[in-house]
Amino acid sequence: MIRPVLWKNNAVVLIDQNALPQIERHVICTDYRQVIACIKDLTVRGAPAIGVAAALGAALGAGSLRETSAETFRMRFKKICNEIAAARPTARNLFWALERMEKCLDAALAEGRKNPAKLLIDEAKRLCAEDIEINKTMGKNGCALLADGDHVLTHCNAGALATAGFGTALGVVRAARDEGKKLHVYVDETRPVLQGARLTAWEMKKEKIPATLICDNMAGFLMQQGKINKVIVGADRIAQNGDTANKIGTYSLAVLAAAHGVPFYVAAPVSTFDFSLKSGADIPIEERSSEEVASFRGKRAAPQGMPVYNPAFDVTPATLITAIITEYGVIAKPTRKNLAGLQKEKRRR
Amino acid sequence: MIRPVLWKNNAVVLIDQNALPQIERHVICTDYRQVIACIKDLTVRGAPAIGVAAALGAALGAGSLRETSAETFRMRFKKICNEIAAARPTARNLFWALERMEKCLDAALAEGRKNPAKLLIDEAKRLCAEDIEINKTMGKNGCALLADGDHVLTHCNAGALATAGFGTALGVVRAARDEGKKLHVYVDETRPVLQGARLTAWEMKKEKIPATLICDNMAGFLMQQGKINKVIVGADRIAQNGDTANKIGTYSLAVLAAAHGVPFYVAAPVSTFDFSLKSGADIPIEERSSEEVASFRGKRAAPQGMPVYNPAFDVTPATLITAIITEYGVIAKPTRKNLAGLQKEKRRR
Repeated sequence: MIRPVLWKNNAVVLIDQNALPQIERHVICTDYRQVIACIKDLTVRGAPAIGVAAALGAALGAGSLRETSAETFRMRFKKICNEIAAARPTARNLFWALERMEKCLDAALAEGRKNPAKLLIDEAKRLCAEDIEINKTMGKNGCALLADGDHVLTHCNAGALATAGFGTALGVVRAARDEGKKLHVYVDETRPVLQGARLTAWEMKKEKIPATLICDNMAGFLMQQGKINKVIVGADRIAQNGDTANKIGTYSLAVLAAAHGVPFYVAAPVSTFDFSLKSGADIPIEERSSEEVASFRGKRAAPQGMPVYNPAFDVTPATLITAIITEYGVIAKPTRKNLAGLQKEKRRR
Repeated sequence: MIRPVLWKNNAVVLIDQNALPQIERHVICTDYRQVIACIKDLTVRGAPAIGVAAALGAALGAGSLRETSAETFRMRFKKICNEIAAARPTARNLFWALERMEKCLDAALAEGRKNPAKLLIDEAKRLCAEDIEINKTMGKNGCALLADGDHVLTHCNAGALATAGFGTALGVVRAARDEGKKLHVYVDETRPVLQGARLTAWEMKKEKIPATLICDNMAGFLMQQGKINKVIVGADRIAQNGDTANKIGTYSLAVLAAAHGVPFYVAAPVSTFDFSLKSGADIPIEERSSEEVASFRGKRAAPQGMPVYNPAFDVTPATLITAIITEYGVIAKPTRKNLAGLQKEKRRR
């Protein structure tokens, strides 16, 4: 099984996703600051994987704190969490995971427990293991939406590499394949960072799921020809009305899917939902370095000094989303009203 | 003035568009087979430029033919034209230019003229010079469609580099700028060959026209934010009903523009029209090497062996086109009926 982020020998072990697919290697982080650097530079990416890495990074930070008073420990741990939270702005799972770690510490200190660092490490490992289970449940919930013979387009990488393992959107594809359905996956290369061409293509090859790589600008032409009959993507943050931030290009695909009568599915755990936000307009969109667009894996394309706009995400309005697949079931035609139940599930956990 | 293809000292001189923007250099072709190789490998590209290069290449071929009977000359010249015509399948201008060269020869031989090679060279030089004039006329005709303060998206390169000089879509932008209108151009990078990032960006910088480079998958997000209020592109072949083949990704932009109420303009000379084709369904779409998608300039992205689909063009239905700008005027809401007049103009020439 592909495990892009895990805890091993008191270290956070990451698959180096910047080196894939040409080089398969791991980065071993023994300091939480290394984890922050790996989140920033996309060594680990994908909203759920960022969440898991953040929790494990916080645990690493907790492990490094000297024995001290409960209040000082809490203060220092909070500072570490704040540093990690500043790594990237859009994915909700990052903040969700850190909030969970802080709650865990608060509860432990309130109960007067000793060795809070160990408790935090256990909590992060639990969060990591749960992520895989959640993805598998999401896969089971979603796979009824995919039929034998489907040609499914996916964007970016919402696979095992974007999670602790198994994947969100590609988890649904895996689950459908495991049920015996024959699927063909069209893989958007996903400029500028090429998560599709590098990571999803790698996963599909590893899993022997038939797949074809295309450039992002080809999706409309394929839909016009009837070569794509479903679209499934992951999510970085979902507002209370179902508006969904995901990798740049997702919104264009949703418009194209609607224009061609192609169902458009989002697969995301409840930890990706931000019920504090009324709509997608409130989701902060990260802008990244112009070099990502001006170059292709270090090979310069654009003239020097050419101005660039590089938003890493866009927001798809809920009205363009056929259904959102979560670990608590499939919500068709997502609205504030029919997503409210999820908020309760989230609070309960 | 940027002159990507011209006749000089009995040679066809091309700007090496594969080397741009990092290296500015010329390729000098003294044999028509070199011109064919340059059309195939995209040293020269863009439908009108391909047409001009084909005519100049045919002239080069004619110049290399030994003195012989009229019939043998005609047969050998026809063979050269057929070889050149096989270089690329989609752009109509390639075939149009060669047909014009053959007609020129037929007329010369019918009149019993001596030295047909010289006549063919003159005809090709005339065709080259006319292309620039046609672009300037198109620019004048189209610039009323662009207003001061417009934010105009363009795809691929339909600029000076895609023609003998001045450009089709970017010719309209140039003409509007020369009228004193302040425009901002958004440049789609245009995967897989990155004609936008490399060539249009280079032209905009050279012309000092304010421009911003984006990835193809960002266009929808920019339209959603109201950052783009016009789209203007070139064309490779237009059927009698106005359906337009252009660089892959154009169709997606047209759907997105329609969904956002953004006008979508095509700028193309009458030589791009193929009145023998009822609709876009009849336009042959070139598929190019998988390596173009899997890599960029030798920098590999996808895993080895990953299947790729690489159509170089797509077809935008006329219903999505606000207007087609030609050297004979602007045809709003193009249909078979209102394009019929152009066919007469084409026959007259």
